[in-house]
Amino acid sequence: MKTAVFVKAGQMAIETIEKPSVIEVDDAIIRVVRACVCGSDLWSYRGDDDKATHSANSGHEIIGIVEEVGSAINTVKKGDFVIAPFTHGCGHCAACRAGFEGGCQGHDRSTNFSSGYQAEYVRYAHADWSLVKIPGQPSDYSEGMIASLLALADVMPTGYHAARVANVQKGDTVAVVGDGAVGLCAVIAAKMLGAKRIIIMSRHKDRQELALEFGATDIVEERGEEGVAKVLELTNGDGVDAALECVGTQLSTETALAIARPGAATGRVGVPHTKDINLSDYFFQNAIIAGGPASVTTYDKSVLLKAVLDGEINPGKVFTQSYSLDDIDQAYKDMQERKTIKSMVVVSK
Amino acid sequence: MKTAVFVKAGQMAIETIEKPSVIEVDDAIIRVVRACVCGSDLWSYRGDDDKATHSANSGHEIIGIVEEVGSAINTVKKGDFVIAPFTHGCGHCAACRAGFEGGCQGHDRSTNFSSGYQAEYVRYAHADWSLVKIPGQPSDYSEGMIASLLALADVMPTGYHAARVANVQKGDTVAVVGDGAVGLCAVIAAKMLGAKRIIIMSRHKDRQELALEFGATDIVEERGEEGVAKVLELTNGDGVDAALECVGTQLSTETALAIARPGAATGRVGVPHTKDINLSDYFFQNAIIAGGPASVTTYDKSVLLKAVLDGEINPGKVFTQSYSLDDIDQAYKDMQERKTIKSMVVVSK
Repeated sequence: MKTAVFVKAGQMAIETIEKPSVIEVDDAIIRVVRACVCGSDLWSYRGDDDKATHSANSGHEIIGIVEEVGSAINTVKKGDFVIAPFTHGCGHCAACRAGFEGGCQGHDRSTNFSSGYQAEYVRYAHADWSLVKIPGQPSDYSEGMIASLLALADVMPTGYHAARVANVQKGDTVAVVGDGAVGLCAVIAAKMLGAKRIIIMSRHKDRQELALEFGATDIVEERGEEGVAKVLELTNGDGVDAALECVGTQLSTETALAIARPGAATGRVGVPHTKDINLSDYFFQNAIIAGGPASVTTYDKSVLLKAVLDGEINPGKVFTQSYSLDDIDQAYKDMQERKTIKSMVVVSK
Repeated sequence: MKTAVFVKAGQMAIETIEKPSVIEVDDAIIRVVRACVCGSDLWSYRGDDDKATHSANSGHEIIGIVEEVGSAINTVKKGDFVIAPFTHGCGHCAACRAGFEGGCQGHDRSTNFSSGYQAEYVRYAHADWSLVKIPGQPSDYSEGMIASLLALADVMPTGYHAARVANVQKGDTVAVVGDGAVGLCAVIAAKMLGAKRIIIMSRHKDRQELALEFGATDIVEERGEEGVAKVLELTNGDGVDAALECVGTQLSTETALAIARPGAATGRVGVPHTKDINLSDYFFQNAIIAGGPASVTTYDKSVLLKAVLDGEINPGKVFTQSYSLDDIDQAYKDMQERKTIKSMVVVSK
């Protein structure tokens, strides 16, 4: 079967490898219908990750059809259409029970996250509780709905996580730092949770337009200190009730912390590429710093799948270009060059 | 009048200065009945604060009688018995409305916190919303109740803040890092909020006993990595649902973060004396880092004053020695040497 591999900075390629098969009793083999490229995949593609190794970061978001299951799998069966969350919660440990399956304590932590899912088939570990069944088959859905279902494997739950851990409440003024697919989904999430005002920090017209469609009320194009000043100006000097940090850089993290009013939480979901931060600096403003890998299964099963199926939210709109698996390098390149907000990879029907 | 001043590391002294008078319209002059020494006062006394200047950190916790008020004060009048919170919230800004008056945005932030309150009289700024009226007069209360009322100026609300921002819920397993007066009050707070199991990290017999009396269920004497291992062992490897950091050192902060299960919050209220922390390290465990100066007025008015007056809680037990104002150096010295958990200063009747 075909699989994408990271060769070196700026170069993805397709290799042919053996089709995976069930190894552990809680494995599921999934035929991939759609995969995609994540902003976090681009860190190594850009060359920002010094230690990125061959085949690192080649995708972790898919929807597909269950091909085969191990003997311990009871929740899905061959032929089921599923969302494969990038997190692999066991559903039973203290972390999972508390709704934080990204930190699952039920198995070796090195198997908590997906990797290498831009492929024709994947072996999905710890599948029983984690996989999210979608009613029907791919052919039952429009291409737009397929895109929104794909968004439920990572990017929409990740935006939702930012809003949840930042404790967004009805009537709040919220700022979203970052206009990538996660930032745009964070706008959707803030609106779902009742935010009255949603400020997005964005410098790209196509993303600004989608943000407004998703519910943003204000756009701040400035960055750094100027961006902070602008958000403070928009909020009468108060700062925001919740800051959603959807990038992961030092600048975006410091910006989010600086625009949060005393006692407000910053929900960070961008994989951090930050230097050290002196927590003492944020003590006197009672800063709350929260976040990490999203609780994908929990959110999909409780809220997000229904919202997508009901047409209440359309996170699939973040996919503005589609590619075949053979064109994986182009899918990375275009996303890196901001020619698409997020690249969808059509693997099978 | 007499006032305590910090002379140099290891030496407090009494000086005679002019009695303060109303300067701003929202000032109140308070005759001090009881003052005390805070763990944060000891940083400079120990010589840990390189930049500590003459008269720094000479107290910020008192109860007393209102002597005079400015023209903008409507909530208290001459003769009222009051708790003087170390925070000075305006009650009207975004931070105060959100319940975080320690970050009050309503006035110059340099006037947000009390200083120099080990004295016969104090000028209490921004008094109108901030002061907390106690029914009756000091003579109406037992010495034990007076001690508990004094604890409401800082130490009890600070322990309560740790538990609140760490989101302690009914049934939780909670760890308190630190057995100073704040840590002991955090035990009281965790119990008030319904924690089922309260682990205190403490190495001193007198404090262990008081912690057990206040509601602690487990004591961990080990520190550092051994302490972390012990807490994990006590929780079947899960970690705790909430970690209350009541010291402020690098070791105590890292310990609190290490014993929190994925998704659990660390509520930190010890004035931080920490080096930089790499937030990336805590991303994959979905750590929540919260805390800062306590919301003293908010907690006293909503919950704590009633709990003290009803005899439901007895935080005043942390005061294990009393001193006259003239003996201020001894009050610091004995607390520094752990001969008393917290030193009370009897200023007037």
